[in-house]
Formats: sequence, structure tokens, C-alpha cells
Amino acid sequence: MPRKLRVKILPEGSSVEAEEGETLLEALQRSGVALENVCGGKGICGKCAVKVLSGELSEPTRAEIGWQKVLGEEYRLACQAKILSDIVIEIPYASAKRRAKILTETASRKFGLEPAVKVKLLNLSSPTLEDNRADLERLLDAIGARSFDPKIIGYVSEALRKLNFQVSAVVFDGELVDVVSPEDRAFGAAFDVGTTTVVGYLYDLTSGKLLSVKAMYNKQISYGEDVISRIEFASSSQEKLAEMQKAVISTLNELLEEMAKEAQIDVERIYDVVCSGNSVMTGLLLGNSCAYAAKAPYTPPFTSPVKVKCRELGLKAGATGYLRTLPLVSAYIGGDVVADILVSELHRYEEPVALIDLGTNGEVVVNSGEEMVAASCAAGPALEGYGIRDGMRGVEGAIESVTIAEDRETVYYRTIGNVPPRGICGSGIIDALAWMRLRGIIDESGRMKEGVSSRLTRENGQLMFIIAEEEETSTGRKIAISQKDVRKIQLAKAAVLAAFLTLMRTLNLEISELRKLFVAGAFGNYIDPFSAKVLGLLPDIPSDRIVQIGNGSGAGASALLLSKELWKEAEEIARKIRVVELNLVPSFRKDFINATFIPHRDKSLFQSTLSAVEKLSTAGKKG
Amino acid sequence: MPRKLRVKILPEGSSVEAEEGETLLEALQRSGVALENVCGGKGICGKCAVKVLSGELSEPTRAEIGWQKVLGEEYRLACQAKILSDIVIEIPYASAKRRAKILTETASRKFGLEPAVKVKLLNLSSPTLEDNRADLERLLDAIGARSFDPKIIGYVSEALRKLNFQVSAVVFDGELVDVVSPEDRAFGAAFDVGTTTVVGYLYDLTSGKLLSVKAMYNKQISYGEDVISRIEFASSSQEKLAEMQKAVISTLNELLEEMAKEAQIDVERIYDVVCSGNSVMTGLLLGNSCAYAAKAPYTPPFTSPVKVKCRELGLKAGATGYLRTLPLVSAYIGGDVVADILVSELHRYEEPVALIDLGTNGEVVVNSGEEMVAASCAAGPALEGYGIRDGMRGVEGAIESVTIAEDRETVYYRTIGNVPPRGICGSGIIDALAWMRLRGIIDESGRMKEGVSSRLTRENGQLMFIIAEEEETSTGRKIAISQKDVRKIQLAKAAVLAAFLTLMRTLNLEISELRKLFVAGAFGNYIDPFSAKVLGLLPDIPSDRIVQIGNGSGAGASALLLSKELWKEAEEIARKIRVVELNLVPSFRKDFINATFIPHRDKSLFQSTLSAVEKLSTAGKKG
Repeated sequence: MPRKLRVKILPEGSSVEAEEGETLLEALQRSGVALENVCGGKGICGKCAVKVLSGELSEPTRAEIGWQKVLGEEYRLACQAKILSDIVIEIPYASAKRRAKILTETASRKFGLEPAVKVKLLNLSSPTLEDNRADLERLLDAIGARSFDPKIIGYVSEALRKLNFQVSAVVFDGELVDVVSPEDRAFGAAFDVGTTTVVGYLYDLTSGKLLSVKAMYNKQISYGEDVISRIEFASSSQEKLAEMQKAVISTLNELLEEMAKEAQIDVERIYDVVCSGNSVMTGLLLGNSCAYAAKAPYTPPFTSPVKVKCRELGLKAGATGYLRTLPLVSAYIGGDVVADILVSELHRYEEPVALIDLGTNGEVVVNSGEEMVAASCAAGPALEGYGIRDGMRGVEGAIESVTIAEDRETVYYRTIGNVPPRGICGSGIIDALAWMRLRGIIDESGRMKEGVSSRLTRENGQLMFIIAEEEETSTGRKIAISQKDVRKIQLAKAAVLAAFLTLMRTLNLEISELRKLFVAGAFGNYIDPFSAKVLGLLPDIPSDRIVQIGNGSGAGASALLLSKELWKEAEEIARKIRVVELNLVPSFRKDFINATFIPHRDKSLFQSTLSAVEKLSTAGKKG
Repeated sequence: MPRKLRVKILPEGSSVEAEEGETLLEALQRSGVALENVCGGKGICGKCAVKVLSGELSEPTRAEIGWQKVLGEEYRLACQAKILSDIVIEIPYASAKRRAKILTETASRKFGLEPAVKVKLLNLSSPTLEDNRADLERLLDAIGARSFDPKIIGYVSEALRKLNFQVSAVVFDGELVDVVSPEDRAFGAAFDVGTTTVVGYLYDLTSGKLLSVKAMYNKQISYGEDVISRIEFASSSQEKLAEMQKAVISTLNELLEEMAKEAQIDVERIYDVVCSGNSVMTGLLLGNSCAYAAKAPYTPPFTSPVKVKCRELGLKAGATGYLRTLPLVSAYIGGDVVADILVSELHRYEEPVALIDLGTNGEVVVNSGEEMVAASCAAGPALEGYGIRDGMRGVEGAIESVTIAEDRETVYYRTIGNVPPRGICGSGIIDALAWMRLRGIIDESGRMKEGVSSRLTRENGQLMFIIAEEEETSTGRKIAISQKDVRKIQLAKAAVLAAFLTLMRTLNLEISELRKLFVAGAFGNYIDPFSAKVLGLLPDIPSDRIVQIGNGSGAGASALLLSKELWKEAEEIARKIRVVELNLVPSFRKDFINATFIPHRDKSLFQSTLSAVEKLSTAGKKG
């Protein structure tokens, strides 16, 4: 019988049992510790890398030696390294399985639970001839408030008597907004209202507990894939504007209902709906076409945070509750960026740090430690799987990780839910493109090199690279990346990279000076930072300085839902940001074209990644 | 040619020309000074009495001598007294023609014009790349506000550009509520929402000028004539409550539209609608059936002042404006009483004063100088002309003054607008009943004495006293007071008088101690205090202590519309009032029955009036 050993995992401090001689991956998986693993334990994808702090493992395999060149000597691939003694490891952020990661796990920011909505249990005395105070005032006196939603007048008398004056009062920032039974709780929803994807989070406002997360494409997408086409549609007539507003509200309503159903609560008990989105999404939600944001001098309709009764928007939530939107900065730097900064605390750094939000509108913020600048660029919906041949959102059945073997014929992939694939989401597409470049299936200009792999075939004259054959998929149709898909991703990543480089130049910063790069984005699952750098979507910065905060927009909206104190800070952030209009930067067009190369026309910008790639290939070849 | 003389009128200080030997009435009428005059200059009705301060007039006629017994030696009847020298007179309140009297003329209260709504003319700069602040913030910065109606987001951008950034901002108590053209003005409406009659006042909020006054019966009246039957109907189902709410809102909407039409303004420019009414009317307006106000312990749904967006009630006013209701005191002491007190300043007296509001619900307030008590009683709609054989509201064609000659056959009357009559309004009914009693046509129990006048006839078995014959009226139908009408008025006046006497007893006050009696009421034209005392509707108090404030409820609502400072005082008044529930006063029932007598079963309570009446009759007879 093999010796029992222990694997201690930092920083959590938990530990699992292991048998001498089994691989780290086997031991961890048996104990339920989720680790990325795409190539099925072949040492190819590098996604199961862990950092070994102490203890004895088997000698590195050839596959591992290649990845150690990329990651560092202290890293081992869990699928290759066999356990020979008690050991202590650290699972890097990129290797931990990241499905359905939300606020608490992704954003390090801590804050006290102090929602705007409070439920106060009251034990009121019934009226008598000696004390026949009005029903409403009896309530207001008990909660020490003077302000109330006038809708309450319609039912306060019946509510008090039905419940024998034993009620709970729902109070929104000092305003009485509902009278409910003592068992009732108050809920709140946070939304990342993205141009392509809308993500909702449902919370119990008493405990701060997350009850449900749901996402769907923004129904406005049928009116245009980017903010400019949305603006064009909405500003063509009052009716079309109303249609657009209805589309996003209907998206929110479906998500509210789905979440409420999952959590088995009544939508009427949702009293606070905090929506984070870019300025155009926020404008359309509140009924402005943002027509003047589309042309110089790029004037947004409003930038203040807005608070509006749910009933006024036809929102399927408590009629007396509020929908609130975040402070905005400019026509293209919106509440989503403020949210990203709020949860990453980018604004608090005194040394250079940056943030990239990968959405349909990509946003980049650089804080030099003294000054904070931001720019927005049109990346399009491709990174969210929209408009891509087999693209889909990061839900069950989506290929979220891809690795291609050196033979250019073997493709490893993992789907969300480990079910047969039916499409590919953003992180899968980035992986696929990075490995296609790594394996020489596309060149640095993004052109597919016909003939180098039997998976490179033509359909209707279009070149494409097959990720999954018909027989593997749940739909019976191939899943492939087309040449067109590659072009769309190139344009998206070029926009983001050029925006980043422009801001760095604006502040006279070198990439090497950045202490941290926060990466936010709602799309698919989380991207692999290595793949993103190979592709030139993210700049060439050591992986351990990259912090993925997940859906920062949704996390920020959640934080503001749960902690009213943070609103002041959000407004301070919005005031502090200086916006750089890329349209007005003469060099931007050229920067953009150079950035369409993979990773960039100027290879010196990606020296470390390119040299690591070289080593990885060499190691592979030598092995 | 007759000598030219001058008549100086105090307290205005104006003067008119007169010819030697003509009557004061002729001189005043020729110069457009409106004086009451019902009997056509016969010295019977006494309504043209004026106080002579200096100058020489003809010897008093026999008719005058009688009235001097009632009014005092210094009074002369303008229709009788001929001018013999320059004279100085004072026109008593009761003698001045009081048609369409409103706030400025009736309520002596002075206050600074400080409406909640202000219009600020702005000269904004257009956005540039250097200053591309958001449209909304450009506005907010200019007016120094942070709060705004979220509806503005929908049109702020277009509004600014359509007007080339030369706009007016409409600000409601620090909240931006509209963006309009520089020519636009802001208007406000004040309403007395009575159980039977609703009166609206439209004001220009910049100048404080009254633009239109309109009144109509409350459409809820078809669901019940008094507050209790309204409550019963409204509390029978949600649908019926909604129907009731709709009825009063539709009443307000019709009045808003009529007033806007008359003033030639757009209803959308009405941003503030202040509604004064009793607690039940206020509750129904805001959607509460007031079910628990109808039974002990008489709990009202709310007493706080309420502020609700016009659009939430479907009010035909500016969507971003507010409807506001006054603070209430209890289930039956409402905002109308607070309004009465506010405009009469009853709460400020340090000696005993009282107030009687003659509405469908009659309310009485007595301030001992130290303590202020109030009670409410069900008078019914009869005093407002509703439910009376030929009753009508005090509009053109309504008989508003009546006098009956000693022969019991000759009836003098005056109609509003001096057109042929089509009915009789409250003040006319009170005059008619008082003179019927004075002339012995009814006895002290209210019974008609068949045979004493040919005008006392029967129709379908019912006794009635004809005021106007078929040929005199515009409808071709008789106008008469039926025995049933007399009963209804007796019950109404008994409720009010008994309530008054109960409160006086509560505070241990004698009627003679009262320094002032304020009389408020929206019905018909103004009542004649002499008639009201003969009838026993008002207590036996010298006429010069009676101050008619007209529609105090409407005047108070107007004052609160025009001066936001007064709201605090209104709330203080509401807090200061101690309510006496007459239902819980054991002696009230008996008091009520005694008060049905004309003027009262206990004649000692009306000694001075009864003795004056005696003298008047005697003078007439002697003459």
C-alpha cells in the first residue's frame, strides 16, 4: 500500500491527502480541488501549472522543462509531477478553475455590508382612542424616518391590519419603500449592462449573500453590434429610441425573473437594482439616444449617478424600489470603468498600474501613481463570442480552453460543464488563436497557412481551422475558427493594445514600469494571460503582475449595491479620471494598424513573451 | 345743475364723484363700486349698508331706522341715504360685492412670494472639445443644483440644442424638473378638494398673479354625498377605490384644462399642484379608501404632507411636476382646516377666537388663546346647493341673495351675473330661510306655515315656498324652497352649531368672549352673516367680529403654492390642534337636536340677534 502524503495548498492553507507516486493533478482532482487541465494530462497546455514552495516531486519531464522556461523554474505541471513527499504548493490564479467566478472570489476589495436597503422588524401597537396616530406615521415614528414612497399610501392601512401590526418596514436610504411581513427579506440586483452581454447578480441584502448569477446577450444587439450603430439607430426617431430602451429593459427583466426563480424569491422583493455600463448603455437604459456622444465634441447626455423608481422604467422589481446607475466620466468612459477601478482599487496606487476592460467597447485606464488617464476603443463583440462563426457566450457547452499539439493535428479543448461542445466562447477563441500562432498555423499577419494542417480546410471557399469535428459536438456540426474570425479578433485586440500603448505614451511610462495590470471583462470564461500575450491582446508583462478581476463592472455594481459608502468613492473616481479621446490622437490610426499584427508589428514590445515561446517550442522539439 | 360732491371710501382711500341729492348707491354704482343690493333700493334687504364716518346725508328713512337697530347708528343704507355734502364712508365686508373673491381679497394674510418652483434663465456655452461636460451637468452646474427628475434625461440633449443652449431651467425646490424655452413661464395650481365642490386656482408662479379660478362638483359625489358613504364605497373593493381615485383626478384634470384654456397656457407648464382637502378627500386622492377612519378609533391612513409626481397620478400637468397635499391632523380634521387656520392666522391669537368652515364636512376650531381644539361634523352637501330642490353651485344664474318683504308675497333676489335665475346657491338658500323665518313663513321648528303666503304652495303633496315664478327663470321652471330643503338645511346648520357649542364648552368659553369668528366655506357666494345668525347657522356674535375668509381651504392651498416658507407653519398648526371626537361626546346628540331649532331651542343663546330682529320688524311696522 502506497505511503499517505499530504499536499498543503497556499494561500488558503487547506491540505489534501495524496498517495506516494501519484501526480499532483490526480491527488488534487480526487480531493475536489479544481485545476485547469485542457490537454488531458499530456503536459501540452500548461494550464495546470502550480508553484512548488517545498517538498519533493519527480524530475521535470520534457514537457515541463519547456513550460518552466515560460513560467519560471519554481513552476511544475500538476499533470506531470509525481508526489514523493509531503509538499506545499500555491495554485496560481491562472490555473485555478474559474467557472462562475464572481465578486467575492475575483475582486480582492473588502468592504462592510451596508446596503441602501434595510429591513426593520417592527412590533407596532394597534391604534386606540388614546393613540389613533395615522397608520403611516405609526410606521414612520417607529423607524425614525419622515420620507416615504407615496405608493405606500395605497396599501399601508390594509398591510398593517392584515399582519396585526407586526410588520417589517423596508427602508431605502431613509425612505420607507414597503411594508411587508416579518418573514420577508429584501433583495437587490446588480447588473453589468454590457453592449453585447448583460450579467445579473442577485443578492440577499440582509446577509450580503449572492443567490444567483445569470447572463444573456443584450437584446439591443439586433439593432447594432457596437455603440455607434446603437446610437445611430436610437437617434433616428423617438420610436426607435423607445424600442432600444425597451430592449434593454426586457433583457434586465428576463434576467431578474430567471434569478428570482432560481433563488425562489419574489421579484417584488427586489428593491435596489444597480446598473453598471458604459455611458451609451446607461444613456439608452434611461431613455437618451446619446446622439451627441457620437460626434465631436463627444458630449454625453449626463454623467451624474441616476436614481429612478423601478416602476418608472417598467422594471420587474419592487415598484417602490430604485434602479440606480453609476457615475459616468465621459461619452465613452462609463460606469463600467468606474466599477473596474473601484473593485481593483486602481486609483489608490502610488506606483504605475493599468487596467484593461475587455468588452465590446474596450477600455484602458493607466494610473501613473499621480495621474489617471482613460481611453475607450471599439473592440466589437467578437471577444464575447458574438459574430464569430461558432462563437457563443461562456455557458455550458462552450469550449473555454484550447491547446494545439506540436503536430498541428491534435487539438485539446475543455468545455464548460465538461459536456460535448456546441460552440466556442471568448477565452476559447483567444486560446485557439494563440496556439494557432504558436504552432505556425497562422502567421504574424493572421493569415492561415493553408496546407500546414489537415484541420485547415475550406468551406464555401473560406479557410477555417477545425477545433472539433462533427462527431464530437452536441450539435453534429463542426466547430471551427474561420479566417474571418481571426480578422475580427485581430481588429478587436489591436484596438485594445493600441489604446493601451497610447495611454502609456501619454504618461511617458514603459510597460516594464507597470507594477500591476488588472484585466476585467465579462466575456466567456477568463482568458489565459499567456494566450492573451501570445496573441498581443494584453501587453508583454510578467504573468504574476496580471490580476484578472473578472467582471469588474458587475463586481463594482455589486459592491455599490452592498455598500452605500462606496458611492462617494465612485464619484471621486469619476472626477479623477482624465479622458483621452483616441479619435483626436493623430498617431492612433497607425498604432492601431501595427497592433493588428500578432502580437505586434514591433516585436521588441513583446520580447519576453516571444523568447518564452521560443524556449517552449525548443523544449518541445528537444523532448 | 346739481352740485358736484365727493364720496371718499375707506380703507382704500379712493373717492368717487357724486351729485347732490342722489343716493349713495346711485353714486357708487355709477362709478363702478360694487355694492350688494338685493331688494332693488327699497331698504328691505339691508345689504347695501355702509358706515358713515363724516359728512351729511338725508334723514334716515323708516326702513333705515329698522336696520340701524340691527347694525348700529353709524350705518346707513346706501339705497336710501341721499348725499348732501362731501362724505367719507367705509364699506363693510358684508356689503361689498363678493363675487369670485379669492385669496388676495379675502384672506388678510400677507406673505412673500417664494414659490417652490423657480424659472432660471440660463445662457449656457455650447460644448467644445475643451469643455465637453455632459448636457445635464452643464445645466446643473449653471443652476447650482445636483438633483433632477430622471425624465429629463430623455430630452435634455435635444432641448438644449433646439434652443441653442439659451434655455430656462425649471427648478422645484432644488430639483431640476424641466428645460424650457426662455419665453416659457412656470405655473401652479391650488385646489380646494371639497367633498362636494372642487375649486381650482391657477397662478403664474413668477408674478404670483392669479390667472383663473374654476369650480365644479367633485365627480365622486355620484358615489355618495358624504365622506362616510364615500369611504364605504371605496373600501368595498380595490376596483371601486380606483374608480373613486379616478373620479377626483378627472375632476382636477377638467379644472386644470379649463383654467389653462382660460389663461391660454399649456397645462404642461403647471409644475406644482397643491391640494387642500379633508382627510378623506386627501386619502382618496392618493389612493387610500380611509376604511379605518370610518370607525373607532378613527385612524387616518396618513397625516404627513405628501409630494408625488404629477405623472404618477395621471394628472394633466407637467409630468415632472409635483402634486402636494397639506398636512392633516386626524381622520376628520384635514388639510382644509389647516389651510383655514393658516390664512386666518387663528393659531396666532392670544385671546379667544373661533373658526367655522362650512363644507359638506363642517369643521369648527376654537382657539382659547392657549389651546386650540377642533371638531368635525357631517353637514352634508345641502349648503353647497347639492340635493336641494333647485340648488346649484354659485355660478352665473344662481340666486345668491334673497329678501322677503313684510307682506310675505314680495320676494327680492339677485342672481350671480344679474341674469334670469336658473337655481339657488348656498348663500341664497340661507338668505331665503332666514327671511322665511323673519317673516313667519316657517316657525322655529322649521315647519312651513301653510296659508300665510300665496307663495306657499304644494307640488306632489310637498309644501314649498316659491322664490321665482316660471316666467322669471331661464329654465321656465319655478325656483322654490321645499319643506324637505328646509329640513336638510336645519340638519346641516344644527351639526355645525352643535359642534361649535361643544367646543366652546370644552374650553369653558362663552360666546361673548370670542374676539373673532372666522367663517370659511367654498359654497355658493358668501353667506350673509345676519341671515346666518337668524337661521342659527352661525352663533350669536356681533357682525363686526365675523370675518368671512371665503374659501380658506383654497386660499391656504394658494398660499402654500406661492410661499414655501409657510409649509413649516402648516405643519406646526397641524401638530398644535387637539381633536375632539364628537361621536365620543355623550351630550352631542342632544345638543344637535336642540340646534335644529331656528335659531336654537335655547333662545338665550341668540339674544342679541333675536332682539335686533324684533326691532327691525317693529321699525318696519311703525314706519
